Formats: sequence, structure tokens, C-alpha cells
Amino acid sequence: MQEMVKVAVDAMGGDFAPAEMVKGAVDAAMLRKDIKIYLIGQQELITKELAKYSDQGTQIQVIHAPEKIETAEPPVMAIRKKKQSSIVLGMNMVKEKKADAFVSAGSSGAILVGGQVIVGRIKGVERPPLAPLIPTAQGVSLLIDCGANVDARASHLVQFAKMGSIYMENVLQVKNPRVAIVNIGAEEEKGNALVKETFPLLKNYPDINFVGSIEARDIPSGQADVIVCEAFVGNVILKLYEGVGATFLSLVKQGMMETVRSKAGALLVKPALKKTLKAFDASQYGGAPLLGLNGLVVKTHGSSKAKEVTNSIIQCVTFKEQEINEKIRANIGISPIDGE
Amino acid sequence: MQEMVKVAVDAMGGDFAPAEMVKGAVDAAMLRKDIKIYLIGQQELITKELAKYSDQGTQIQVIHAPEKIETAEPPVMAIRKKKQSSIVLGMNMVKEKKADAFVSAGSSGAILVGGQVIVGRIKGVERPPLAPLIPTAQGVSLLIDCGANVDARASHLVQFAKMGSIYMENVLQVKNPRVAIVNIGAEEEKGNALVKETFPLLKNYPDINFVGSIEARDIPSGQADVIVCEAFVGNVILKLYEGVGATFLSLVKQGMMETVRSKAGALLVKPALKKTLKAFDASQYGGAPLLGLNGLVVKTHGSSKAKEVTNSIIQCVTFKEQEINEKIRANIGISPIDGE
Repeated sequence: MQEMVKVAVDAMGGDFAPAEMVKGAVDAAMLRKDIKIYLIGQQELITKELAKYSDQGTQIQVIHAPEKIETAEPPVMAIRKKKQSSIVLGMNMVKEKKADAFVSAGSSGAILVGGQVIVGRIKGVERPPLAPLIPTAQGVSLLIDCGANVDARASHLVQFAKMGSIYMENVLQVKNPRVAIVNIGAEEEKGNALVKETFPLLKNYPDINFVGSIEARDIPSGQADVIVCEAFVGNVILKLYEGVGATFLSLVKQGMMETVRSKAGALLVKPALKKTLKAFDASQYGGAPLLGLNGLVVKTHGSSKAKEVTNSIIQCVTFKEQEINEKIRANIGISPIDGE
Repeated sequence: MQEMVKVAVDAMGGDFAPAEMVKGAVDAAMLRKDIKIYLIGQQELITKELAKYSDQGTQIQVIHAPEKIETAEPPVMAIRKKKQSSIVLGMNMVKEKKADAFVSAGSSGAILVGGQVIVGRIKGVERPPLAPLIPTAQGVSLLIDCGANVDARASHLVQFAKMGSIYMENVLQVKNPRVAIVNIGAEEEKGNALVKETFPLLKNYPDINFVGSIEARDIPSGQADVIVCEAFVGNVILKLYEGVGATFLSLVKQGMMETVRSKAGALLVKPALKKTLKAFDASQYGGAPLLGLNGLVVKTHGSSKAKEVTNSIIQCVTFKEQEINEKIRANIGISPIDGE
């Protein structure tokens, strides 16, 4: 019999918890029989939600967490004090190998801190980057790092490039993924101090497919598979992506409602348009993994619905099956920078 | 009689030079009789283009520039060597007060270097920021800095906030413009080292309307009038804005052509949609001023058409009339940082 992949899910994190978290877990359990899911949170609330669905047998198990970390709480303090919160309990399960992965739509700060402090880094990994998939015209790109480590150093970015390549190659099945560094011009001499220092290191890194600089303008069209940047810049890219998309969509809707003529047209256009724009919906790809940890931690959007939760859980199975952490462990130790 | 505002225009810079540059100048001269325009570049080519339009009398004058700086040339070297290029000649006219302003769609690097080296900074201004207007759902915001000074310091960002406020208040007529700093969270303790250092300085700055942090997600909806950031981040924001918009638009178009039904709808929707999306067209606001110089230098998009050139020239008139540089000079000297 195939080994079960054990995924702990934070039932309390996110705008639509616990309903959508529970639904996402139930859907994942239906799709794959080789997953065991631990729903962590207020037992009573979770059980009530679970009662809406047919019995999952032993595939889903509830673990009571009396405490909850709020989004506004200072993360370090929250992780330290709320030992009985769903986030801390879930992280501890990963640390103690009781779970292979932990999925949460809760406080980003707490998840990032918990990942580092509780789950811990793979030996040799300097910083664990948060690496969401972002939609492009060609499919999807990995944006790494996106919020875990501001003011990163060049050696961190080089590790991000390697870990991102391993992830894209094995989880997304992109052969020889193109790695680019976010820059403000295409030429090698362009950039800030960090990019100028990192560029030659990436260029000389033996087994990544480094294609040079990428200007932010070329990200949405899908010019690279792994987009390396420092976390502040990555966070700006991720959020602006969402912001411009949302504003643009509302302008399109507004434009369609402008005249009687356009309203009639909108009815005809809507189904096809919806289908095309779905390609630009990040939720279908699951959450963002925090890479380089002794286990897997996945952060989903705060606004996650069941579908994103389901996809994130299934993403954990691929991560385990493809032995991503073993590959990171085997590759990151051999750094061309420190010559270890 | 009102004093003429003298604007030097680089007739050779940009993808559609000299045709669109010349047309833009002719249109501006028709709209405003108080502008004198110097078209700088290959005399023969410009004269040929000018011949397409009715005689402008003495309002437009051609100045021959035998050399041209290419976009790919290293900027510092280009400015130093090509003394007879349209960019160097134009900058020199501003320096020598023969022109109030210089407008160019040419090499960004050369324009930024030329502005600092040839035109020179206003005394007290540490760095001259490039400050384009970006479209938002509410109108337009000033993104400052956007490419002139990577790896800026906190004191630079504070000056950007002040210069940006003066510009928005006087050129765009925004009363008490809201100033925000680009950050990766709303809370004061969030951010990288630069933002954390700058935040309290902006908070305590006496006469700007500082509203705190802005997440990139909230930029397109128009949550602030002056958006302060370091140039690398600003450049990423500006270019991603264009990139996401373009990809999104192409997806909308593609979606509309998907089925027979949607094609019929597209015909009905198109006119109203076009009108609404025009609000998101940056070219109607003119180019990006390089603020804090002894004169005015305006960088327009490399892809500028006549309309953007015309609007940029007219923007120079407002800049002069509103005495922006006098206001910057009067305000930047009194810095709360160094207590001068």
C-alpha cells in the first residue's frame, strides 16, 4: 500500500474559515485517497462544518486548538505565547514528523516566523523564501522571495534561484526552468547594489538555467519560470499584480455597463471572457510554499476559498512524492559562493 | 504681453521620432500661443516633417544636432562624448536658461545623467527623482522616485515626498495631497530597513499630508496622491503596471474573440469599453518630470506618440507658471533632518 501523505490544515485561518477550509479538506480527501488530513482549530466549529458532508472515515481527523492567532498580532510574540493556537500546533506536527506539511490561510507574519522558529531550516539554507506561483499569459511563474526575508543578501538570492528551479522542475514539471532576476533594465550593469552583486553569481552557478535580468514589464507575459528577487520587491510585485488586475477588471465591468448597447454586448461576451480571465486566477495553483524548511509549510491567500485549500493540499502530496526537500538538501549544501 | 515659455524638444528620441515628436510640437504650438518650441535634431529630417504642417511662424525653431544618443549606449559616456547630440544640446539650453524645459523620449539613462551633470541640482536637493504620473481608478498618482537613484537613503525619500507634494498641489491642483510610502504591510513596524528609517521622518515632517504606508495592492485604486519609494521599487511598480495592464487587455480581447456569441457582443461593448479604459492610459498626462533640477527636464515614454509630446510640452508651461522650482528651492533648504 502507498504511504499516506499527512497534511495538517489550519481550519481557523483566513477570511472564510472554518467553512471553506473544511470544505477544501473534504474535497481534497475525496480526490485523493492517499492523503490523511488533520483539521486544526476549534473542535466544535470544525465538527459542525464536517457534519455537512458525508463521513470521510479516518481520512480526516480533527485536532482541537483552543487558541487563535489574529492577523494583526505581532508575529514573534504570537508564536511564542499562543502555544495552543492552530498555527503553532500545526507547525509542531510538521516539526515532530507527525505531518508532512502544514497549510494555512492565517497571519502571514506568524506563518513565516513559525516556519523558521518551529519547523526550522534545512541545514545550509540561509533563509527560507516564500514562493507563490503567479499567473502569466503562458501559464505560471514562481516568484521567489515574496515576503519572508527583507534586506536579503546576494547569497540568499542564489539559493532562492536553486530552490525555485527544483520546485518548478519537479512540482510543476517545467523542464530546465528559466531563471531570471528582477531588474530595472536588461543590461548586466543595470540595477541596485544587491542585483549587481547577485547577477554574476547566478551567471556562474553551475546547474541553473539563468537567462539574465527580467524587467517587471515582462513578468506577466511569462518570460521566465523562476523570478528571483528580494522579498520587499517580491511583495510589491505580488500585491500590485492583484491590485492592477482588480482595478482593471472593475474598469472593464464598468465600461460594459456604460450604455444600453454595451450592456447588451456584455451579456454575450461574459461567458467567454470569464473563461479566459480564469487563466489569470492564482487560486487554481494552490498556495505559496515556504521553501527550505525541514518539512513543508504552505501559505494560502487570506481570502482562500475551498478550491485553493484543496489545491494546496494536493500540492503537498506532489511536494512529498517528488522529494523536494531531499533535493534541496542535496543541492544547497554545495554552494559555489562559499565553496563548501 | 505674457512671457513666452521656451521648451526644447528632442526631435530624435523615441520609437516614433522624428515624425511624432514634430507633430506633438506643432499641436502644442497650435494650442498655446505662449510657447516657443525648439526642435532639436537632424535639421533635414525635422524640416521635412515640419513641411507637412502649415507654417508656425516663429513659434517653432529648428536647432541642428548632428549626433544622436542611442538607447543602448552607456549613459555617462554618451553624455560626455556626444556634445552635439540632441540630448546634450537640449540640456545645455536649459542650463544656459535659453530654454525653460527640455522634453525627450530618448535614452532614460542619458536623460537622468544629463539632468544631474549638465542641468544640475537645485541647492539643497540631494537627488533629483523621476516622477511619472500613473493612472488610478480615481485619476492619477505621482510615483516618486522611479528610476533616477537606486539605493537611496531616507533623507532622499523625505525630499521626494516634499517635492512630490509641491508638484501635485500646484501642477495637478490636488489640494493637500496624500503622501504615502510604499510598504509591505500597513503597520508602522513593517518594512525593510530603508522604509523603517524613513517612516518616522515622514510622520514628523511639518507640512506634508503623510497618510502612512501604502501596499502595492492599493496603488491602482488611488489611495494616495504622492507615492514615495526608492527608485528600484518605483521602476518595478511602473513597469509592472504597464505589463499587467497589457497582458490583461490582451486576455480581454482574446476572450471576446473566443466564440461567435462573444464576437457579436464585442462589437457592442467596444466603444464604451474603450472610453473607460482610456482613463488607464498614462499618455494623456504627459511625461515624467525629473524634479529638483535648475530647470525642467521631462522624460516621456520611448513609445510616445504626438499626444504625449504635446501634453508634456504643455505640462512644462504649467510647471513654469506655477513656479515649481522656486517652491522647491524655498522648501527643500529647510530640512527637518539636518535641522538647517
